[in-house]
Amino acid sequence: MRLGILGGGQLARMLALAAHPLGVRPRVLDPSPDAGAGAVAEHVVEPWDDARALARFATGLDAVTCEFENVPVASLEALAADELAVRPGPRAFAAAQDRIAEKTLFTTLGIPTPAFAAVDAQADLEAAVARLGLPAVLKTRRLGYDGKGQAVLRDASDLPGAVERLGGGGLIVEAFVAFRREVSVIAVRGADGDCAFYPLSENAHAGGILRVARSRPGDPSRDEAVAHVARLLEHLDYVGVLALEMFDTGAGLLANEIAPRVHNSGHWSIEGAETSQFENQVRAVLGLPLGAVDAVGHAAMVNFIGAMPPAREVLAIGGAHLHDYAKSPRAGRKVGHATVRAESPAALEVALARLVALAETHGDG
Amino acid sequence: MRLGILGGGQLARMLALAAHPLGVRPRVLDPSPDAGAGAVAEHVVEPWDDARALARFATGLDAVTCEFENVPVASLEALAADELAVRPGPRAFAAAQDRIAEKTLFTTLGIPTPAFAAVDAQADLEAAVARLGLPAVLKTRRLGYDGKGQAVLRDASDLPGAVERLGGGGLIVEAFVAFRREVSVIAVRGADGDCAFYPLSENAHAGGILRVARSRPGDPSRDEAVAHVARLLEHLDYVGVLALEMFDTGAGLLANEIAPRVHNSGHWSIEGAETSQFENQVRAVLGLPLGAVDAVGHAAMVNFIGAMPPAREVLAIGGAHLHDYAKSPRAGRKVGHATVRAESPAALEVALARLVALAETHGDG
Repeated sequence: MRLGILGGGQLARMLALAAHPLGVRPRVLDPSPDAGAGAVAEHVVEPWDDARALARFATGLDAVTCEFENVPVASLEALAADELAVRPGPRAFAAAQDRIAEKTLFTTLGIPTPAFAAVDAQADLEAAVARLGLPAVLKTRRLGYDGKGQAVLRDASDLPGAVERLGGGGLIVEAFVAFRREVSVIAVRGADGDCAFYPLSENAHAGGILRVARSRPGDPSRDEAVAHVARLLEHLDYVGVLALEMFDTGAGLLANEIAPRVHNSGHWSIEGAETSQFENQVRAVLGLPLGAVDAVGHAAMVNFIGAMPPAREVLAIGGAHLHDYAKSPRAGRKVGHATVRAESPAALEVALARLVALAETHGDG
Repeated sequence: MRLGILGGGQLARMLALAAHPLGVRPRVLDPSPDAGAGAVAEHVVEPWDDARALARFATGLDAVTCEFENVPVASLEALAADELAVRPGPRAFAAAQDRIAEKTLFTTLGIPTPAFAAVDAQADLEAAVARLGLPAVLKTRRLGYDGKGQAVLRDASDLPGAVERLGGGGLIVEAFVAFRREVSVIAVRGADGDCAFYPLSENAHAGGILRVARSRPGDPSRDEAVAHVARLLEHLDYVGVLALEMFDTGAGLLANEIAPRVHNSGHWSIEGAETSQFENQVRAVLGLPLGAVDAVGHAAMVNFIGAMPPAREVLAIGGAHLHDYAKSPRAGRKVGHATVRAESPAALEVALARLVALAETHGDG
């Protein structure tokens, strides 16, 4: 079987590495000749929005999936029109690409989410803040990631010019959530409707970028998270891996955003689950049975941001598993991660602290 | 870093899949344009014994290893002469390629092995059998694998013409061992002399080909096996993964043969050990620290011989992990394997029985 992937970065690279053992040949579409997945997959060096390039890319494929959510929906629709299985489908991407559509979807499905309002002019912001109160968070509706395109409005003095500074319109303002922690649930739905839910991830961000994600098997919030994401999977008739990020307020979970793809907070599943999110994405998208998602030991992941620590130092940590994305160093760039797997939560934290220290010493602070 | 691998079959393919996450770019040398590792590694399509091809292959590599033991020793020596790290070194291959050298090495190191004698003519065989008794096993000294180049001599009537039938000379005759079971130990030694020993494998063969290998953590014969293989590692100043196959007679282990490479009986280590034999081979050969080799759950592997069962049926078995080598079907050919990992030995056997049934239904009986 042949699987097409739109995008050739680290997620495509890990999807490709999971595909080969299943007898699946991966092919990535990425305009960058240096895309990291190119070393482990057939690489079509073309843009994502050229109809002829898409047709060439699609030739002979059994299914297509995406590694990033900002893929042009029109490209997905064009591929799907050619009777190719495009999974997840264009609908999920349309929702994920627009924060208003996303939060409206949560509300429609009865999934709690912070209060929000669309902002297309400064007057909209003033009106919304009168209703939501301060602090609040102003974000671009589209194309935000890793904390980019956001501004926290702490008091009235932050309001003047705020809309202009984020581009003048196409914004959303959300009530500020004083959360206890950030969590996510990685879910997968097969072509036959079968669903599986990984243990909850507890996520630590800094500077808007995920730094550490811990697998939390048996977490008391898991059932609540699963109920929310299950509703999304059914409503979207979703096929593939879906991540739902949430704030845990201590009095319940509030949905923050979805990612219609494998997700950074699920990278620990390569070693820390019976079947990784990458393998289950390949299985789901090609109509194969899903694999079990039970926890294997205790696992956590540390992102390497900006630059990689020396492999030798990572591998000297017992239970550490290195994932180098073969990217050149650059400030703020995710260039790799390491997962540590341990027999006990206490042993996990000891090894994790060493990995975090390496990440901070060699990468962005 | 860049790692060269002589040979581009399934072992090179699994080495390459283990190399990428470590930030190691694999390059394979294999004269077959269809070599399965070509999909996941740079592939130099050249023979193993052409000096200029070897030089081109070696350009820019940090180290070279081999996926098969019958690589020309002269080629390894030529690569090593260019100050390239060739690991394991030519000495281990010289011993592994000649059953007389191999068994003499065992004897020198005090490792018990079946009684044996060199046979270069029918008279040698008659003299040896008078000493060793019958039954006995006559084998080619070189290039035997998967039960090829062997004949069991059960009684005196099997002797006439036996040497002629195996090529007339260059043979070894060994006392027949009525073993209780076949076991192997996968060991790895780092460039710094650090050693690690995987849980014992218990191996079931049929028709001379390995069918099932079970990880046996806590096996009572493990210490004995480790003592034997540790002596080999030290004596050969070995760097990399070494497999030692043994007969368990019920009254001790008898060494049968070594493989100076990753080994089929260790394939379960991908899911069933903290660090796979493939990753540890990459780490050792490049001078990186070794990874822990502790068992992760209970694991066993089933070879798919001749043809693959449908992926869908393998993946429907809970805890089953598929490894398709992307080879075309052919009688007697190893085309893939599946590992099953389970919480208990009992659950393992239930899933294993289903995998064995699939292997027998779809592949060679």
